[in-house]
Amino acid sequence: MQEEIETLWEEVRELSLGSSSQVERLHSPPSPLRFLREFVSANKPCIISNATLHWPAISSWSTDSYLNRALSSDDHHLVSVHLTPNGRADALAPNPNGDPSSLCFASAHVESMPFHLALLHISNSKKGFVAYAQQQNDCFRTEYSALAADCEAHIPWATEALGCLPEAVNLWIGNHFSETSFHKDHYENLYAVVSGEKHFLLLPPTDVHRMYIRQYAQAHYSFSQATGEFTLEVENPVRYVPWCSVNPYPSPETRDREISEFPLYFNGPKPFECTVKAGEILYLPSMWFHHVRQSPDSQGRTIAINYWYDMQFDIKYAYFNFLQSIHYLSTHVPTLPGMECDYSSSDASECNLRDQLCTDSSVANEVEGSKDDENYRTPVS
Amino acid sequence: MQEEIETLWEEVRELSLGSSSQVERLHSPPSPLRFLREFVSANKPCIISNATLHWPAISSWSTDSYLNRALSSDDHHLVSVHLTPNGRADALAPNPNGDPSSLCFASAHVESMPFHLALLHISNSKKGFVAYAQQQNDCFRTEYSALAADCEAHIPWATEALGCLPEAVNLWIGNHFSETSFHKDHYENLYAVVSGEKHFLLLPPTDVHRMYIRQYAQAHYSFSQATGEFTLEVENPVRYVPWCSVNPYPSPETRDREISEFPLYFNGPKPFECTVKAGEILYLPSMWFHHVRQSPDSQGRTIAINYWYDMQFDIKYAYFNFLQSIHYLSTHVPTLPGMECDYSSSDASECNLRDQLCTDSSVANEVEGSKDDENYRTPVS
Repeated sequence: MQEEIETLWEEVRELSLGSSSQVERLHSPPSPLRFLREFVSANKPCIISNATLHWPAISSWSTDSYLNRALSSDDHHLVSVHLTPNGRADALAPNPNGDPSSLCFASAHVESMPFHLALLHISNSKKGFVAYAQQQNDCFRTEYSALAADCEAHIPWATEALGCLPEAVNLWIGNHFSETSFHKDHYENLYAVVSGEKHFLLLPPTDVHRMYIRQYAQAHYSFSQATGEFTLEVENPVRYVPWCSVNPYPSPETRDREISEFPLYFNGPKPFECTVKAGEILYLPSMWFHHVRQSPDSQGRTIAINYWYDMQFDIKYAYFNFLQSIHYLSTHVPTLPGMECDYSSSDASECNLRDQLCTDSSVANEVEGSKDDENYRTPVS
Repeated sequence: MQEEIETLWEEVRELSLGSSSQVERLHSPPSPLRFLREFVSANKPCIISNATLHWPAISSWSTDSYLNRALSSDDHHLVSVHLTPNGRADALAPNPNGDPSSLCFASAHVESMPFHLALLHISNSKKGFVAYAQQQNDCFRTEYSALAADCEAHIPWATEALGCLPEAVNLWIGNHFSETSFHKDHYENLYAVVSGEKHFLLLPPTDVHRMYIRQYAQAHYSFSQATGEFTLEVENPVRYVPWCSVNPYPSPETRDREISEFPLYFNGPKPFECTVKAGEILYLPSMWFHHVRQSPDSQGRTIAINYWYDMQFDIKYAYFNFLQSIHYLSTHVPTLPGMECDYSSSDASECNLRDQLCTDSSVANEVEGSKDDENYRTPVS
């Protein structure tokens, strides 16, 4: 089966991305028909330049004073900030209950605070205490509604192409520590950078086996104001979350071990790398795996808004589920403690959990958002 | 692997066609965006009613006199007619060189003749001599260009959606004998019935294993005016064509044998059945397997025009190739003589020949059209 799956990896690269192996860049927004035909239907990413230069946000959001004024008119207005020791929320971390090599899925400590304080924390983040405004529950239309006039409520050509308004619009204010680990979303994603730059690694859904999706115990950081320190606690009773095992930027100390543990990723075709700058939009097709880092603007921040539109659950989705249900027989995948599969929910032997619509949404509601009514980020499953 | 593939069959049915298991029927042409979003992108068929009622052809093509006048202004103008003993051109037939159960892929005797003669042959077909005007080399824009004003040169909303004009437009004039065996095309197909009715069986591309695609020796009918009889001859040297083995309407004598030989088809989910009437268009998505029969109008004929638009070779195509490359392990598929695979061109053990763009076009050129400059019908491969 290896050979057939590896041929698929190559063919999708050839057919979707051509010989350049670069994400296609459009110099202005496409017509709705072209966007739908060449990108959404084909499940193919693109970057659109000169997409949002007309937004007031592009100029006005680069100063603290403007943002603070807009978001502090009501003293009681609070925003949610994700606090972690390292900028990596919803990512794998050493399991505090396991042996040294065991990992868990760590979610941030989410703290509500006045916006000016949030901005201070984001700007003054340091190793050991990193703040990231990245609440993914449609926060731009709720917590940040005071900024609505600075952007468009939706991306007009995408809305016309997709035939619906966005299901969620999220604001992201991060810094150079902020990092989002590999995952996929069950949405068509229009990702608009307002300030700074975002660096994406992209892998097509057909590379699912290269992500080594495994079950990890759900854990949560909690931050103590008293000690100024984080503790990480695994939920009790333990609940498992399927997540990508691959960290594409391993530290020098763990590099060799990670390469030998995840050979399909490190020895296979390279992910597509792209950088999205202020004024540009990345179309990130549904089901594509993505990893995100960022470069800050002169204020030390990266600000972006993403629009999640409903995806079509069509033959592509069925094909993906089929592919994921297949065992990729690799002779070089040692199983480490803490990376155990939840075999009870699958009859496959390599954590190829079947992706079901109902399962997805129920898992999504459980993963991050204990404080949210709804959670729009679908973990990999 | 059976279980995973069978789940895929079911999931595509559920996701693409919903609980009704009926091909969706639109009561008027969709907007280009809707057509692209809901049908082409999703690779999902639909029938559009009231699609071509404004065509002059709908009324004028039901009389011989009109057609003869339009197509006989030039005495030397000839059209191509496919002659077979049974109405089944490009279908499996007993191999004249093999044992009684061995089959070959039989193409019609193609005869050029004045149109009025072609029409007489089609109308007066009988068992043993069946004529079918079904030249698939863009014949509507060449042999039948005198009829151009009676139809549209393209389907406007499909052209806008797909972003190109049709690659080929074909006219089909058949009778109740005419039948097209299961195959797929690498085109988006808009199939407009002008007179009579067409009965389609449709299977999604994900059902590829249920078609038992095998290699058959290419053979040709030739008709002798002298004896009034057909002979069927296998090409020498033998050349093999991959084709679907399943005949969905086996005769009472062969029924039991065929059911036990092709259990995945006969015991699996039913194909989608639909009837397309005069004035309606079937959108037949690229890569869907289809089998076609027809009911004639009061003149004994069924007339249709189909528009082949280029398909996008995108992630769906790559997924299909992957699926086809996988061996479906069935314990009940006996191999009969004459159904041999060409193992040399594949390392799979059940004739899962990989579908390559270049291979397709080269095979297509070889299959039917020794008399054609170009051949637009892509055999299953």
